[in-house]
Amino acid sequence: MTTEEVAKKVVELTRKQAWHEALDTLYDKDIVSVEAQGMGGGSPEIRGIDKVRGKTDWWVQNMQVHTAKVGGPFVAHDHFVVQYDIDVTDKNSKKRMQMSEVGVYTVKNGKIAREEFLPLT
Amino acid sequence: MTTEEVAKKVVELTRKQAWHEALDTLYDKDIVSVEAQGMGGGSPEIRGIDKVRGKTDWWVQNMQVHTAKVGGPFVAHDHFVVQYDIDVTDKNSKKRMQMSEVGVYTVKNGKIAREEFLPLT
Repeated sequence: MTTEEVAKKVVELTRKQAWHEALDTLYDKDIVSVEAQGMGGGSPEIRGIDKVRGKTDWWVQNMQVHTAKVGGPFVAHDHFVVQYDIDVTDKNSKKRMQMSEVGVYTVKNGKIAREEFLPLT
Repeated sequence: MTTEEVAKKVVELTRKQAWHEALDTLYDKDIVSVEAQGMGGGSPEIRGIDKVRGKTDWWVQNMQVHTAKVGGPFVAHDHFVVQYDIDVTDKNSKKRMQMSEVGVYTVKNGKIAREEFLPLT
């Protein structure tokens, strides 16, 4: 797939919260995923499809998503950007949060090889 | 300046269309600037503050900006993203255009060392 095709598929799948289908079909097995901050003091950068799948599982298990607005994609060369506005409740703390962030994705050989998430600041 | 400080200054200056002040105060002299497509069949990538200033001069001379909506910044580590929704008229062709794009910026040593622009696709 071209960068644009991957980008449009990410938007389509995240709009319906099909996180696992996105991972299984669009991600390189050596994906590097970078958050603004590591969870629990850990590294903000994780590597490999299994660890990214673990992060996604944690998200699905712990967050009740009320709405997820997905903007974009913005595409050029081997990069694309997707904007997320997400309204969730943490199932443990019962705290409701509105989060805005962008994902900056790098595509290599038709797969997502790198993703970085940047929160609205 | 930190990445966040540079990012907030870019948003502040582009909101008031102070393009030259942004260039003079925030950009590294060896800035690499990447557009989705090169102008007139040229390379999409240009290097050096003088060439970026030339691109900015061309923009200011050729475009009448009706409104420029600037969203963000989204910040993490050495990167930030700004979203632009711009309503302009090309002074030569008289064609009015609405453009949405994001800029993905890389900060090194307190200056913008790289910028990439990705249009809404």
